[in-house]
Amino acid sequence: MSERVDVLRLGYRRGRDPRITTHLALVARALGADGFLLAGDDDQEMFDNLNSVSTRFGGELDTEHVSGLGHLKKHVENGGVAVHLTMYGEPFRQAIPKIRRDRPLIIVVGGAKVPGDVYKICQHNVAVGNQPHSEVAALALFMDAWFGESGSERSFKDARLVIEGVNGGKLVHDNEDE
Amino acid sequence: MSERVDVLRLGYRRGRDPRITTHLALVARALGADGFLLAGDDDQEMFDNLNSVSTRFGGELDTEHVSGLGHLKKHVENGGVAVHLTMYGEPFRQAIPKIRRDRPLIIVVGGAKVPGDVYKICQHNVAVGNQPHSEVAALALFMDAWFGESGSERSFKDARLVIEGVNGGKLVHDNEDE
Repeated sequence: MSERVDVLRLGYRRGRDPRITTHLALVARALGADGFLLAGDDDQEMFDNLNSVSTRFGGELDTEHVSGLGHLKKHVENGGVAVHLTMYGEPFRQAIPKIRRDRPLIIVVGGAKVPGDVYKICQHNVAVGNQPHSEVAALALFMDAWFGESGSERSFKDARLVIEGVNGGKLVHDNEDE
Repeated sequence: MSERVDVLRLGYRRGRDPRITTHLALVARALGADGFLLAGDDDQEMFDNLNSVSTRFGGELDTEHVSGLGHLKKHVENGGVAVHLTMYGEPFRQAIPKIRRDRPLIIVVGGAKVPGDVYKICQHNVAVGNQPHSEVAALALFMDAWFGESGSERSFKDARLVIEGVNGGKLVHDNEDE
């Protein structure tokens, strides 16, 4: 049994970020997180969409609206590990071996403006490249490296739809037909 | 000298997709593409933003609006390789060793509705996981695996701003100050 992994999106603005944040949550789910935490605005509609993906494609992704910095502080005080993805961090492949794996992990994805305290509360500030690109890409590359290659190829329990890719076509099993 | 790599975004809708598509282009640039091609709507403003990133952070990313399927067909007829990222493809780490590297490559990222012909025109249909997640994540994971670890840690020529990440702070060199 491995320790719990959550992804925390800070500073969510409902009017502006829904697609990017939905992508973050879907990446979290697909690459092996147990939960997706939203700070900033709440968005029950997004959570409903995420739950509907889990119903169809399997697995379980806990979704919760949290207080952001307060939640993060408590997590660290309780012995948890927090990794902040930022362009201004240590290269991720160099940092990963130093991150302890025997504690619950929160991966923090900043929003528009990250409070400076985030850098201090998190034990690790980790960069995925030193170029501006995308928090979605950074999360995916970090999680893939964290979980190893098995991350992106794992199977999900209780899936109704299972996709088996083939070069040149698709094969979708609908388990409810069987 | 390695062969040219371009990323082609199909079916862009200017009113709806600008942030996701900008993320795609920034990932393309950061992870080593030579160019970013847009099919569907044109968007000179996005191209201007991308060029401004290259001016500040270095390197060069060609940006061009193209015809989509027509451009893709011509590329393949001229001996180029086309890889289509799709949930319904062959697992990417299994596919990559089969993709020839001695020809120019176009990595195709579908839009809302991908015409069926894309699956036929491209020599490779490649999946990054068999779960719904994000084309930004899929592009990042594919490019990282294609270029190897050097992809996300490379340096850019003629950068004005250079970020050196450190755990707990940031260091930004502005080369114009020297």
